[in-house]
Parts: sequence; structure tokens; C-alpha cells
Amino acid sequence: MNRPDAERDLTLLRRAIALALNSPLPDPNPRVGAVLVSPDGIVVGEGWHHGAGTPHAEIEALRVAGDAARGATAYVSLEPCNHTGRTGPCAVALAEAGVARVVFAQPDPNPTAAGGGDTLREAGIEVAGGLLATEAEAVNRIWTRALRLGRPYVTWKVAATLDGRTSAADGSSQWITSPDARADVHRLRALCDAIVVGTGTALADDPRLTVRDSQGTPAPRQPLRVVLGDRPVPAHAQLRSSEAQTLFLTGHDPAAALAELHRAGIRHVWLEGGATLAAAFLRDGLVDEVVAYLAPALLGAGRPMIGDLGIGTLADALHLDLVDVTRVGPDVRMILAPAGREA
Amino acid sequence: MNRPDAERDLTLLRRAIALALNSPLPDPNPRVGAVLVSPDGIVVGEGWHHGAGTPHAEIEALRVAGDAARGATAYVSLEPCNHTGRTGPCAVALAEAGVARVVFAQPDPNPTAAGGGDTLREAGIEVAGGLLATEAEAVNRIWTRALRLGRPYVTWKVAATLDGRTSAADGSSQWITSPDARADVHRLRALCDAIVVGTGTALADDPRLTVRDSQGTPAPRQPLRVVLGDRPVPAHAQLRSSEAQTLFLTGHDPAAALAELHRAGIRHVWLEGGATLAAAFLRDGLVDEVVAYLAPALLGAGRPMIGDLGIGTLADALHLDLVDVTRVGPDVRMILAPAGREA
Repeated sequence: MNRPDAERDLTLLRRAIALALNSPLPDPNPRVGAVLVSPDGIVVGEGWHHGAGTPHAEIEALRVAGDAARGATAYVSLEPCNHTGRTGPCAVALAEAGVARVVFAQPDPNPTAAGGGDTLREAGIEVAGGLLATEAEAVNRIWTRALRLGRPYVTWKVAATLDGRTSAADGSSQWITSPDARADVHRLRALCDAIVVGTGTALADDPRLTVRDSQGTPAPRQPLRVVLGDRPVPAHAQLRSSEAQTLFLTGHDPAAALAELHRAGIRHVWLEGGATLAAAFLRDGLVDEVVAYLAPALLGAGRPMIGDLGIGTLADALHLDLVDVTRVGPDVRMILAPAGREA
Repeated sequence: MNRPDAERDLTLLRRAIALALNSPLPDPNPRVGAVLVSPDGIVVGEGWHHGAGTPHAEIEALRVAGDAARGATAYVSLEPCNHTGRTGPCAVALAEAGVARVVFAQPDPNPTAAGGGDTLREAGIEVAGGLLATEAEAVNRIWTRALRLGRPYVTWKVAATLDGRTSAADGSSQWITSPDARADVHRLRALCDAIVVGTGTALADDPRLTVRDSQGTPAPRQPLRVVLGDRPVPAHAQLRSSEAQTLFLTGHDPAAALAELHRAGIRHVWLEGGATLAAAFLRDGLVDEVVAYLAPALLGAGRPMIGDLGIGTLADALHLDLVDVTRVGPDVRMILAPAGREA
């Protein structure tokens, strides 16, 4: 018989969380790991989610276990899902396989997938949830934030001089920061689902907005490129290249754009500018993280890093918390979050 | 007999350099230490400079040694001076005391005081100079730089938001940075000889420009306050308080102002602004160090941290080297120096 053992539960749940780290990032789906243990304490199946469109971690583990799943305890890093997407609900699959007990870590924050715990209980399965929830949530920090917010998590990236200029008086802006800083940007871009710019930036800078290595070779997986605004982007623009997909969204409402991206499964948006678009996101409270690269240089004139925020007096300044500050080559990178907001 | 022993020379010279660290900072005079050793290897006198107007280190050591100075070797962290200021030349004093040999570390960079080594040699004294010169110079880094430049060393201090604003749109600026950052400013101000502002800042902010502790109590020693410009500063201005001395210099030429301060024995200038005055110093290549405090906040409008530098295109940006970056409370402090310039 499966006698619950608190210490063993924690050990096996930690194993499930460790397996979750094998799941790919970025992905519209959360990273999940699962371990199936027979009544006599033998691990009979393990699995992790290999990315959108592939079986969930529980299904992988059930497949490995086969008949040995009957009477087993399932340890899962995230509450088993309750909805039918590209795959069936995991809660039902666990019940049908004859699993006797389910221990999960993070409760599912996804309103359309939650309720798996209840479905299992209704099927007569013993369920324990919420153990090691914080550790499990850390594996899916951005995804969890996005689902709680009901929109993609937004990182605003900016590169400027010490005096906050993103271009010189004549508009020249390549390059403000060092090759080291630009490589760092590509590394972080690669972890996002979509890169967003306004038509102003698209027209002024003709950016590629792809993830490339130091030799300029594009990465195999590219985030979705998103251009926001009403001005037409010419046919020869680099943004229209076949290197990556590009979505053109009309209008300038950040919330509307994020809602559309959320529906498309985008959980992490990398907002690259320009200053006017970034200001619109900031004014609407739609920036969750700021990644600022400051070059040790002064210009004394040129485009400011951020447009008008509607702030007239110092008491109304938009306060951020400094999460991290580090040197990147000759430059400084700061990571900040809106003050007092959950990181 | 005084047989030169390279190892012993270094040991005793290190002792002289260590004694130099007892000298006060800031001071128009360099920090110097001296050790007198008898022919049989006994330390017969030690001394260090206690600040402008007091005897030099060598004179202190000679006073301690008395007749034992005859035939001794003098170890001095800086080349003995050759000029008569408020005290007589140390080179002559050492010769008159019958010192047989002088070993000094840093050659004197002060054109009006140099030549002490030659004077000693002409008096028939054996002289070795330049050993451990780098270590000794580090004890008087700013003073050495000032004398080589023939003008005070200039530190520009600025406190701004992440987007480079030193005030909000309505002019409000107190306080951009945290109490921790302001305490750090007072600590660094205390190490300077003079605090310089323009009349614009004097009139707009009515600053005290004194060194105070966290309770607001002024320090016993206050740097000279210097106001640059032609606009009259009202009689009730805090800058005219009796807490510290204030020098009013007309005109706007940074080089002329620095020349006048150099003649007054000022070796380290702490330039506090505003943006126009700082830009004038930067344009003329008269800033040796930048201490920038950045608050993790955005304003999107307001006074920029630096005025027009006459830079039109990115290739002409004023490049700095990042010497240090650190957190100060919730803020970030960066120390920078003009790129490629000796720090």
C-alpha cells in the first residue's frame, strides 16, 4: 500500500521539478516533469514536456510505466491539466491508468487548464497539491506571471549612453553599446516568444530583429517579430525577410496588442522600442521588467531613451526596483522591475 | 658604514610609505612619511606630514633623531623638497643634519619644489630615488595628477534618473537619489578641496554645498565653496553662510577658474553642476573623473544631466572608461574616467 511519507514525497517531487528543467525554453507551454512510483517504492516511469504539440510530462511517464502505473503515485511539478488542447487532459489519463495517488507542486495558474486536482479527487484518487510550489513556480516564472496577468510578460530592452541618449543629434545610433552588450541582447532575445517594435523604429532603423550568434548566423528558432502601428512597412524591409515570422498589428494600443499576442500563445514579449512605443507601454503599466544597457559615453544631445510619460513633477516619477546590475564588456547592464510589483 | 642593502632599503621605504598614510586628506600638500636609520641599522627617527603649515615629514624625523641623524640614511616616500615655503627646504635640512644617504620613492612632480635629489647630491650625499615610486604615488594619486596637469584634478558628480534627468518637467529635483547616495556624496565631497557650481545652480537650487553627516551636522573641516559666473548671488543665499568659505569667480572659462584655484593650493575640485557648467568643463577636456549616481526611476521629461557638448554624430561621442560600478542603497554609482586617459 502507498503509505504517504512526507520526506519521500518531497524527494520525489524535487526529482519531478528537476526533470521539468529539461523542457525547452521558450515555449507557450510550461516546463513540467513527472515521476511515477509503484506501491513498493520503485520508479516505474519518468517524463518531461518536450514543448508545444508534444505529449505532456504525465503522458510521457505513463507511457514508460505501462501497466506498472496501476496503483502508483504520480509526482508532478505542476497540477495535471484538465483541458483538451492538442493533447487530452492529463487528469483523465492518470485516472484511466489507475494511478492511486497524485502529488503535485505548483497549482495550475492557467484558468483554461486548471481544475485537474478536483477532477482527480472526483475520480477517487488521493491528491496532495502545493508542496514545493515556490520552487516549481521558479521553473516557469515568466509563464506563471503571464497567466496570472492574463497577458504576456513584457520586458522592455533599451540601450543608451550614460546621459540617456539612444542616438546622436544627427540620428546616428549604430552602435551605442559594445559587441558584448549586443551579444547579451541576442542571448536574452532567444528566451522570448516575440520581439515587438513600433513602425517608427521599423522605418527609421530597418532592424532584422532576429536572434544571431557573434558571426551573424541566425539561430534555428526565431521569436515572432511583431510590428505595431499604422504606417506601412516597405516590401524590402529586413523585417519582411524569411529568417523569422512577422506579425503586423495596426493601432497603437499596447493592451490590445498584448491581448492578441496572448491569444496566440505568446507569454514573453521583448519590447525593443522606440521611445514612444515604450512610453505607451510604461504609461499603461504594461512593462514588467526593464533591461537597460548603458554605454560609458556622453552625447549631450540626441533622442532620449524614453518618450513622454505624462510625469510633471518628481513625486510622480515612475519608480523601479534594481534587480541586478552588472558589467557587460565595457558597458553596464541593469535589470529593473516596477517598484513593489511581484518580480 | 652604511652598506646599501637592496632588501633593507625596500623594507624601510615601505615603512616610510606606510607612515605617509597618517597624513591628513585632503590637504594642499602631499602625504609624506620619513624614516631615519643609523649606520648600525637602528631606526632613530620617524615622522609624517601633519598638513599644510606644519613641518614636513623629514623635519619631524630629524627632530626625533637629534644628533643621531649624523651619518644616518633617510628613507622618504617623496623626493625631499627643494623650496622654501612656509618651511625651509628639506634637502638642505637633511644635509645640515649630516645625513649620509637618502633613499626616496616618488620623484617630486611639483615643478616649484623639485630638484631636492640634485641638491642633496651636490652636498655630497648619496641619493637613490624612484624605488617603489608607483606605490608611493598611489598615496597621493590626485595630488600627483594635479601637479602633472598643472591644474586641479576635476571630479564631476551628477545624480540623475535612469533616463538621465536631473529634474522633472516642473523643475522639482529633491531628491532624485536616495539618502544612501546622498551620504556617499558627503563622504566623497569631504575628500575634496573645493566644491564648484555655476551661478545657475546657485540661484535655482540655493544649495549649502557643505559636508554634513546623516544628522545634518556640518563636518569640522569644510571644502572651499566656489561659485562660477556673473549673475549676482543674493545676500541670503545659503552659499553665503558662515559654515564654510565661499569664493565667487566671475566669467565662465573653466581653465581660467582652475588656474586661479590651482594658485590657491586647490588640488581636487568636486564639480557639482549644473548641466551647462559641466558641459563647458567636458568640452574643454577638463573633467578627469565622473561620479554618476543613477536612481532606478524614469521621468520621461525634465532637465538632462548634461548640456550641449557640441557633439553632432555618434562617432564623436565622448567616451569614458568604467572604473567602478556599485549599488549604493537602491541606486547605482558609476565611476568613470575619460577613455584612454591616465586614471
